[in-house]
Amino acid sequence: MQKHVLSVLVENRAGVLNKVTGLFSRRGFNIDSLSVGTTENKDISRITIVTYGDEYIIEQITKQLYKIIEVIKVRVVSQDSFIGRETCFVKIKADEKTRSQIIGLSNIFRASIVDVSKETLTVELTGPTDKIDAFVEMAKQYGILEMVRSGLMAIERGTKILS
Amino acid sequence: MQKHVLSVLVENRAGVLNKVTGLFSRRGFNIDSLSVGTTENKDISRITIVTYGDEYIIEQITKQLYKIIEVIKVRVVSQDSFIGRETCFVKIKADEKTRSQIIGLSNIFRASIVDVSKETLTVELTGPTDKIDAFVEMAKQYGILEMVRSGLMAIERGTKILS
Repeated sequence: MQKHVLSVLVENRAGVLNKVTGLFSRRGFNIDSLSVGTTENKDISRITIVTYGDEYIIEQITKQLYKIIEVIKVRVVSQDSFIGRETCFVKIKADEKTRSQIIGLSNIFRASIVDVSKETLTVELTGPTDKIDAFVEMAKQYGILEMVRSGLMAIERGTKILS
Repeated sequence: MQKHVLSVLVENRAGVLNKVTGLFSRRGFNIDSLSVGTTENKDISRITIVTYGDEYIIEQITKQLYKIIEVIKVRVVSQDSFIGRETCFVKIKADEKTRSQIIGLSNIFRASIVDVSKETLTVELTGPTDKIDAFVEMAKQYGILEMVRSGLMAIERGTKILS
């Protein structure tokens, strides 16, 4: 099944997010990642959803989303014309020996060290999904104590806008 | 009303997110931002929710969350011990005159230019909420065409982990 990114503009009201996620759960579609945040207009929020399915399923989801009155606009973001980013915090086990190695690794990935303790290093990294995956894979050798990963955020290239 | 950040570990199953958002909507609590992503364990997802309310309301929400069987752990992240980050895409109107000014502004904020067209510049910025707010405020003078903002992500300082 193919990965799809949906960008949904909704009115910023209590309960809207629940209607949107309800649509997925009623039909048994899993949401791989989801992110909700404000837009340039504080009355409007944007929900970015990553899900898997064939073209038919995505078409059905889009149609159903439009039935929710607070949904203003839905776009299936085209895979080759969008820029995608995730943000990730990784708390890595670190001692006197490994600390400098982890800092070196973080520099290669242009990640930021956001916290240090005697036994840990916490790193923040923003980038495309595959870059984050690669960093996490490398960090595993030291021991990942905790990972907080945002949902994917997507914006289309050029002048295209969703509003 | 005070701002609270909830970090919730849940089993990665279809419908869980809907149960969590349903709890908020049934009680009329608005979710200011929400972000769901995977953790170091692919069977477990983490939901970070920003909401407003007094101590009593947050306590009630926490209790109700634990009634959802897929909820593994809830933590109200303490305001002074966590590191918070948001990621933001801003598509800004840009012409020959303003392009270099916007690039200059982006450099000050350590934002990355992720796309350029004849009429636009798209910038990606990761940072604490107030830094993002400040950048957006400055970008407004050029004209913001589109903004995609992630929910807040939070991790606690030091060796504390939620699992």
